[in-house]
Amino acid sequence: MNTPVPSRKLIMTTNRSIPKLAVSRRLRSTPYTPRIEALGVSDYSIVNHTVLPKGFGRSTQEDYWHLREHVQLWDVSCQRQVEIKGVDAARLVQLMTPRDLSKAKTGQCLYAPLVDEFAGMINDPVILKLADDHYWLSIADSDVLLWAKGLALGFGLNVNIDEPDVAPLAVQGPKAEDLMARVFGETVRDIRFFRFSRLDFKGRELIVARSGYSRQGGFEIYLDDSSIGLDLWDTLWEAGSDLDVAPGSPNLIERVEGGLLSYGNEFTRENNPLECGLLKYCSFADKPDYIGKKALHEINQSGPVQQIRGIVFDGKSCPPCASTWSLKSGRESVGHISTAIWSPRLQNNVALGMVSAGYWRVGQELNVECGDGTTREGSVVDLPMM
Amino acid sequence: MNTPVPSRKLIMTTNRSIPKLAVSRRLRSTPYTPRIEALGVSDYSIVNHTVLPKGFGRSTQEDYWHLREHVQLWDVSCQRQVEIKGVDAARLVQLMTPRDLSKAKTGQCLYAPLVDEFAGMINDPVILKLADDHYWLSIADSDVLLWAKGLALGFGLNVNIDEPDVAPLAVQGPKAEDLMARVFGETVRDIRFFRFSRLDFKGRELIVARSGYSRQGGFEIYLDDSSIGLDLWDTLWEAGSDLDVAPGSPNLIERVEGGLLSYGNEFTRENNPLECGLLKYCSFADKPDYIGKKALHEINQSGPVQQIRGIVFDGKSCPPCASTWSLKSGRESVGHISTAIWSPRLQNNVALGMVSAGYWRVGQELNVECGDGTTREGSVVDLPMM
Repeated sequence: MNTPVPSRKLIMTTNRSIPKLAVSRRLRSTPYTPRIEALGVSDYSIVNHTVLPKGFGRSTQEDYWHLREHVQLWDVSCQRQVEIKGVDAARLVQLMTPRDLSKAKTGQCLYAPLVDEFAGMINDPVILKLADDHYWLSIADSDVLLWAKGLALGFGLNVNIDEPDVAPLAVQGPKAEDLMARVFGETVRDIRFFRFSRLDFKGRELIVARSGYSRQGGFEIYLDDSSIGLDLWDTLWEAGSDLDVAPGSPNLIERVEGGLLSYGNEFTRENNPLECGLLKYCSFADKPDYIGKKALHEINQSGPVQQIRGIVFDGKSCPPCASTWSLKSGRESVGHISTAIWSPRLQNNVALGMVSAGYWRVGQELNVECGDGTTREGSVVDLPMM
Repeated sequence: MNTPVPSRKLIMTTNRSIPKLAVSRRLRSTPYTPRIEALGVSDYSIVNHTVLPKGFGRSTQEDYWHLREHVQLWDVSCQRQVEIKGVDAARLVQLMTPRDLSKAKTGQCLYAPLVDEFAGMINDPVILKLADDHYWLSIADSDVLLWAKGLALGFGLNVNIDEPDVAPLAVQGPKAEDLMARVFGETVRDIRFFRFSRLDFKGRELIVARSGYSRQGGFEIYLDDSSIGLDLWDTLWEAGSDLDVAPGSPNLIERVEGGLLSYGNEFTRENNPLECGLLKYCSFADKPDYIGKKALHEINQSGPVQQIRGIVFDGKSCPPCASTWSLKSGRESVGHISTAIWSPRLQNNVALGMVSAGYWRVGQELNVECGDGTTREGSVVDLPMM
């Protein structure tokens, strides 16, 4: 048997160019992809087996300033809908989340943690209540459809579960309302935060919600017919020509400053809702019952051992954060950072991470062990970051 | 209300550069990523929320010829393992697949369709039987873990389900056995196709299977400790220096010629195993019982209405196939192509696609409506393509 001594020489020939995304049908295009590609999309992520445009050749900083001042169209078709319909729909949806849905109204959007029997996070969708027996779960990056189908089959629930042809288009930024009013009429201004209405678009009714993955305000249009995707995009684009409308995407600087969490980044199935700061979405009353209630109750009794916090740290720039970075207090490991980027507004690096109990109070000094080998001085800050 | 006439001008400014993959913790790195990046990975795909290196700056054709002649190391960590363990493990795994597992032996790898209650494909893993009460499902791109957990919870089965720290490394190509023998000893030559053994690597036992996603022969090492990933990579790399070892990946030309299917590409939840040509993995005997048996039996009675076929078609090159392309017979739609590429060996374009009954016999002439707007003459061929 021959086991030669390993050589480390390979690590010396580091290639710094960023890899391209290999195309295939499996990584699904969207109804808006032709326009996204015509506009020169430069970066894609993948969420729910679907492309998420992340950049258009401008820097994340340029996109950040634009988002705070103007209006952007975001192709967030990757926010797939898990449709749950039928006489047991309300029962199944409630079974899946610690959030008490008993008072939820049709027309409401409800942010909700989904957990497993150990209270581990499965996803954190926005639930749209379309009717008493009809829900859409607008999901982050995990196959909630398989979880829901498995539960329904096992528990013998009378529901239909499917992924409908729905491709959300987000209109985000301070001018979003003006742009939306031009296309959907003035009535769009009456939609309250996290509510939706059914509005006319060229003779079709589309679900329009005041929601979106930014703190700059805006709407999400739940287009339920791919064949009119280009028409919808073009209509918004033309209507916004004097509003400096631009293609955009969830902006990393803006989301970190705003404390908007991302499943798979800030938290995984290893974490529970209390670690994610989602106590207010967890009911411990006698009713309702839900999967993971006992486990979650026990965690709540003893208190979470770690929690997501905002962190700022030194340096004039930030290396790309592709995996977790250790947080240290002296020699002690006290958590990790999951997302980090340079903020041109705060003139500091900003981050989100999981911090151990005892080290998570605002002002706590911590060292960040960055992916580029540097150690930076940082501290815990309030979210959202002002 | 203002609904301006849409303009199509955007489509004129097409940008042809291929987008980069946006990095984040959510798109998980692997134990081999430092070596993959040092070797200049140029293309990534995403499978199971994990990076799959797809190219290293050479063309797919160069990689193809190299794979057929030498030996390659593939980082296939994205083939995540769904571990199912416990007194009800065998029962749950059997419930999930139409393949009769009653005679399966420890040490066996079993390719198996997983289906839902409508016989729709959920995944097509290789199942490793580690013990009577212990299985790994080495999965394609869907969260089988959530499906299994939902079923287990609903049916009240006594199992533990988790994703262990296992990162498969494939060693593929005609020189794979020689390379493996140098590292794991001559005993590796005795491993039969789709069997695995536990072999020593520097005092540790690793599962080594004769398997892999190519027709060139080779092995998959189920590394179950990320911390020795670089050591494993380096040891194989050094041992193969005189065998022209190179980094590689599942090769699109080789897999299409070989008729190797890919979940999400050739088939989805919309398809059943008979459409995928997997009849031989479907049991219709009295036992075992499994989810979707009734639906699958009915489909088998009437026969599938479409089936995956190999297709060749004209042209000196092939545009990238990022979505399905229509197959026509005259004016009639008779299916679609899901994957296509130029084969330098066959001097023809080769493809896999779903073809309607009545049009799927070898020799059937079809027209392929390619993504670049051209229509090419093609025909159905046998798989694997000789």
